[in-house]
Order: sequence, then C-alpha cells, then structure tokens
Amino acid sequence: MILIYVLNLAISTACAMLRFRVSLLPMKKPVLTPLAESLPATVPFVGPEAAERAMGHPFKARLGANESVFGPSPKVIQAIEKSSEELWMYGDPESHDLRIALAKQLNVQSDEVVVGEGIDGLLGYAVRLFSGPGDTVVTSDGAYPTFNYHVAGYGAQLVKIPYKNDFEDAVGLAAKAHETGARMVYFANPDNPMGSVHDAAVVQQLIDALPDQCLLVLDEAYIEFAPDGSSPPIDTSNPQVIRMRTFSKGYGLAGARVGYAIGHRDTIKAFEKVRNHFGMNRAAQIGAIAALDDQEYLSSVRETVAAGRKRIAEIARQNGLLALPSATNFVTIDCGKDAAFAKSVLDALVARGLFVRMPFAEPGNRCIRISVGHNEDLDLFEQLLPIALKEATG
Amino acid sequence: MILIYVLNLAISTACAMLRFRVSLLPMKKPVLTPLAESLPATVPFVGPEAAERAMGHPFKARLGANESVFGPSPKVIQAIEKSSEELWMYGDPESHDLRIALAKQLNVQSDEVVVGEGIDGLLGYAVRLFSGPGDTVVTSDGAYPTFNYHVAGYGAQLVKIPYKNDFEDAVGLAAKAHETGARMVYFANPDNPMGSVHDAAVVQQLIDALPDQCLLVLDEAYIEFAPDGSSPPIDTSNPQVIRMRTFSKGYGLAGARVGYAIGHRDTIKAFEKVRNHFGMNRAAQIGAIAALDDQEYLSSVRETVAAGRKRIAEIARQNGLLALPSATNFVTIDCGKDAAFAKSVLDALVARGLFVRMPFAEPGNRCIRISVGHNEDLDLFEQLLPIALKEATG
Repeated sequence: MILIYVLNLAISTACAMLRFRVSLLPMKKPVLTPLAESLPATVPFVGPEAAERAMGHPFKARLGANESVFGPSPKVIQAIEKSSEELWMYGDPESHDLRIALAKQLNVQSDEVVVGEGIDGLLGYAVRLFSGPGDTVVTSDGAYPTFNYHVAGYGAQLVKIPYKNDFEDAVGLAAKAHETGARMVYFANPDNPMGSVHDAAVVQQLIDALPDQCLLVLDEAYIEFAPDGSSPPIDTSNPQVIRMRTFSKGYGLAGARVGYAIGHRDTIKAFEKVRNHFGMNRAAQIGAIAALDDQEYLSSVRETVAAGRKRIAEIARQNGLLALPSATNFVTIDCGKDAAFAKSVLDALVARGLFVRMPFAEPGNRCIRISVGHNEDLDLFEQLLPIALKEATG
Repeated sequence: MILIYVLNLAISTACAMLRFRVSLLPMKKPVLTPLAESLPATVPFVGPEAAERAMGHPFKARLGANESVFGPSPKVIQAIEKSSEELWMYGDPESHDLRIALAKQLNVQSDEVVVGEGIDGLLGYAVRLFSGPGDTVVTSDGAYPTFNYHVAGYGAQLVKIPYKNDFEDAVGLAAKAHETGARMVYFANPDNPMGSVHDAAVVQQLIDALPDQCLLVLDEAYIEFAPDGSSPPIDTSNPQVIRMRTFSKGYGLAGARVGYAIGHRDTIKAFEKVRNHFGMNRAAQIGAIAALDDQEYLSSVRETVAAGRKRIAEIARQNGLLALPSATNFVTIDCGKDAAFAKSVLDALVARGLFVRMPFAEPGNRCIRISVGHNEDLDLFEQLLPIALKEATG
C-alpha cells in the first residue's frame, strides 16, 4: 500500500518535471501552473451588488440568491452582537463548540462533522481531496455551478447528464458514474435551481448503487424546507456519502458563511489536510450555535416560507404560468416558452428593480426562479410579472 | 504559447491516468488523490481553545497568537453591530467597497487588490496558482508554518534556509531561489516569530534579485507596527511581488478573517480562477471598511503597543533575559539557554494560565514569544516569569 503511494508520488513528480513552463519571450514574470493557466477567470455567480453598481441604484427587492429575507432568529442577532467584543480573537480553528452542537442535533459524533466557509468552501475541499487530473466527476446539467467550478479548478473532468422531468436523475447519475468510473457524484436534494425533491428512498437507492470507490456529495442546503422523509437517515459508517448543509438558507445567515459537512470520520478527518483552519469568523461560529438552539424560530420560518411559496405559485397561475412544486425557499416558474423568452422576462424584472435569477441550462432555462420574500417583496413581484411578460411577448 | 499549454495539459492528464489508485483489498470506499493521501492531517497551529478544553479552564491571559487585545475601534464594533441586520444577505463576492477603500488608502487601483479569508486563505490561493508538483518554493526555517502547509498541500517542494542573527536572510533567500529555480519565495517583514524588521532597501534588494519567473510573497501582516521606512513603495507594475496584509493585527479584527493582497493586476485577476468567491463574511467586510476609516484609533493602538513592548522588554531584563528588538505587536525573549529550556519556561507559563507561544525552529526556539497585552495581562506575565524560570532551571 505504502509502496504504491510512494510510486504514485514519484510518478507525479516526474511528470510534473516534464511540464514545459517556458515563456517564449524571456520576461520577469511569475508563471501560473499549467492547470491554473488553463482555467478561466470567471465567477460562478455575479453578485447582485455588481448589478446594482452597474444600474446605479439598489434593487427594490432581493429574491435572486435564495437568501432568507426573514433573517436569523433575534436570539442569533443578539448572540452575534454580544460577541463583537470577542472579535479581536481568532475563531476556534476546530469550531469545537459548533461541531458539538451539530453532532448532538444530528445524533452523530463531533469528529463526523467539519465546519467550513459555506458549502462553497467545503465543496472545494472535497473536490481537492478526491479528484484531480484524469479523474471523472458526474453531475446534472444545470446543477450547482460552483461545484463545477471546483471540479475544473482541480483539473478533473466533469460529465453531465440531463435532468429528468425537472428532477435530478438519481438512476442516471449512478449509471453514468459506473460508465465513467467517476470518483465523485454531486446530487442536491432538494434541488437548486428546480426546487424539486426526491423521497429518501430514491436517494438511498443512489447511495446503494454507487461504484465502489465513488463519493456521493449530497448537497442538502435546502433540507430545512423539505417535507419529512426527503433525507435518508444519516449513516456515518458509510464512507461513500458526504452531506453538505448550511446556515445560509433556513437559518437566515448567508452573510455569516457557515456550512458543515457530515460523513465518515476518515473523510471528515481528511479535511484537516487541506482546509483553511483559521478561516471561520468567530462571530459566525457563535451565531450558528445560537441558531441551532432556536428551532422554534426555524419552524416559524418554515411556515412563513411555505405560505410564500403558495403565494408565488398563485401569482404565476394568475399570469397563466406554471409554478413547479418546491421543497425549498424559492419557486421555479415555467414561463411556458423557450430560454430566450424566460431570459426576457427575467431581464424585464431585473430592470425594474427586482433581483431574480434563472436556471442556466436546458430545459430548466425555460423558467425563472424567485426566492420567497416578505409580503412587500412579493407585492412587487405580483405587480411586475404581468409587465415583464407583456414586454417579453411584445 | 497556447500549444505549449495544451501539451502541458495533455502530459498532466496522461500522467494522472498512469497513477495507480487501487486498494489492495477491494472495498466500498472513496480514494483520496495521491497528493491528498500523502499529506498529514496536521494543523499548523493548535488553537488556545483546544488547550483550554484540555486544561478544563480558560487562560487568564491570551498573549500567544499576536492578536490585538485592544480590539478594533469602537466605530468598527458599532458598524458591525449595525450590520447584523444584513446578515441574511451573502457578502458582496467582489468585496467591492472594501477594495475601493483599500485602493484609495494604498494609492493603487482596485483591481490590484484582492480580499480573502485572512492572509492564510490568500497564501493558499497564491501557492495553488503558482506552485505544484515538481516546483520549488523557498522560505526561512522557522518562518510562518501555514505557508509551508499550503506548499506541501499543493505538492510543491519546500526549501528552507536558516535565519541570520534572528533576521530572515534576504540575500540568502534570493540566492537559494536562483540555485533551486524557485517559483516562489516567502518573506515576512516584519518577521514573525522573531519580531525583526528589515529596512525597505533590503526588501527592495531582494525584489530586484529574484529569478525572472519567481514570485515574492511579501507578508506584511505586522506592517502597521513597523517603523516608517520598513516597506518599499508599492509598485504594482512589478508582477514579481505580491504583498499580504491583514485586519487581524493592527486593526484588532482577527476573529473577522479579513486579509488582502496587493499586486500586479494579472496576478490579482488570477485569484478569480481559484478563490471561494462567496467566502467573505458580510459583517467582516463592513467592519474592515470602518477600521480603515479610523486611522486615529490605529495610531493610538500603535502607541499603546509600543509602550507594551517596552514593558515586556523591561520584565525580561529584570529577569536577566534579553528581549529582541520588535517591530510588531509581540516581543520575542531570548531565554538564554537551549530550546528545551525555553520550552520548559513556556510550559510553566501555560500551566499557570498564560497563553504564549515560542518559535518552532533552531535557533529561534531558544526564545519565547509574548504578544503585547493589557496592563493586567502583563502584570500576570511579570508575576509568572520568575516562577517559570525557576521551575525551568530547577
């Protein structure tokens, strides 16, 4: 075993030394690694602030990033404000107290949980650990682009399969993983951007059908909004699954950047090899613990979000459009025509001060995606949608 | 040029496919990449919280991590507390307003600045961009271990040269970079853990002496405490230098995790290829802007820190020890004997509730390192040092 790894390393190094890294014109300038050189300097998501700067005025409503406009519990705000006197201290690099609180809530051990700078940060670490040049990773065409960004960033090959009836295709993902010998499969349940959710049984089938050496990245960012029975029981004895969850959605703390991953302790321990140990904001750790502690508030948000989804669906219906069923804090609305039409509707809404987004890929890009907002946010949407539709049609 | 990169990629991929990634016993478990497998799951710094948990009680004073016990400006606290109502929103992924404020202060353009999750996070991105397997990186033996962690983490080869009279050896680093064809050189000015600082002219000599394709990572985390004339003028037209600075030290915001890098716009732009765009806490961005805005507070901290350094040196002198000159917010004290003795002194202080650290490598590890604290923190140090010395001697 050790011999094989030594051999691997020797081969890697020898190969690296083969790389040509010359400038054709000799100049005094550092040279990117070939992998870094090959990457585009693009951003998976441009923030609404950039659009606001371009427009010269702020959005009237911010329903494009599936943030929770309802914010965190007042107890969280209180805990965070109280903690500002501690901000001179680095956060605990182990996020110990938060991991203990999470472990208790999830009924796992604290060494089966790792905390990171949002799910985005944790996805990067996971890809770095398990995939590199020559490896294949499978996802759905139109699923979370930041995962794809990391796969490209570490030089692995991304293979995409289409959605099936606006659901991620669990059976198809497993089949494609076998066909390609994939190292990782990405699967979000509930799904973003379509809002759909599979039963736990379907997810479990995917888990059971994975190739032997394949890791399932089960992104459960929206799980707090999903109906009971959407998530198979957490089984940390299975090294083939790592779940990603966040305080950005249900707990209303997107600005704090706190994500966590749950998995087999060997997988979780491997994050120590690569993560930014002092990457976590101290107040964010404290706020997340307070958030976990106020499940009553989470329940109330869940109810408010369910009501908001109904209202968005009703607005869609009044405009002759179909809202897809949603297990998240957003609703994806089928605009009934092609991607160009949906894009026109989106642009018309954005131009009038409503920040919304739309799915990137066929066939989801016939839709627009609206996060649940306050009543006044949805009033604006109700007012603008007919105008936007008219403009897009005309 | 393009052809060469395509060729590089083809070679990399072919090499990767050569790697053996087999388990001797077939089992259902994902396999780490060979590089990840080769890395130890160790942490560059264990946090004081871990020691507190092991001891079962908190430290009486926290002078081990060069945090600023004086904290951020009251205006920063105010701005952060006010921003807690915005925490439901993701932070601007471009940290635009903060970069504008930094650019203005530094007299550079905003696309010559990138903001990240502390200098630690930015060091990781920089290493990832410029060094990989087969590349050499040069640093000083005993310099910042988190940089070394990242170099190992991306598979590059680290070469260390010794300190010279408790200073990083600028001439030696340049010579070693030429000798090894290094891709990067790490140089901290002022230095941690020795507290020493070079004149700007020495730093400029190092810059001018770099091999053509080598990047100097100039870590200026402690620059706010250094005397005028320690830092050469910022020249973003030179692609061979990237400077790292932070809000963790002078600005008293270690818990917020805000670092920034200044460099040539091509280098800065490259960070977009790999960074965690949504990694920055929203309140932290707001707090950092407020911190920059209160230079008066920074000046007062600088004075308080200078007085604290004097007092630490005096305490050392009273105990027959030599305090090294410091251009930082800590003082490194030569315990006058070997590493084992310094370690005993350190252990005796820690056991009595004073969190301090010591340099890791010869010959610096004959010393202990004390961050400037409040008067009551230094009272405790004054009280404990003779006891610790006696215990270490006895």
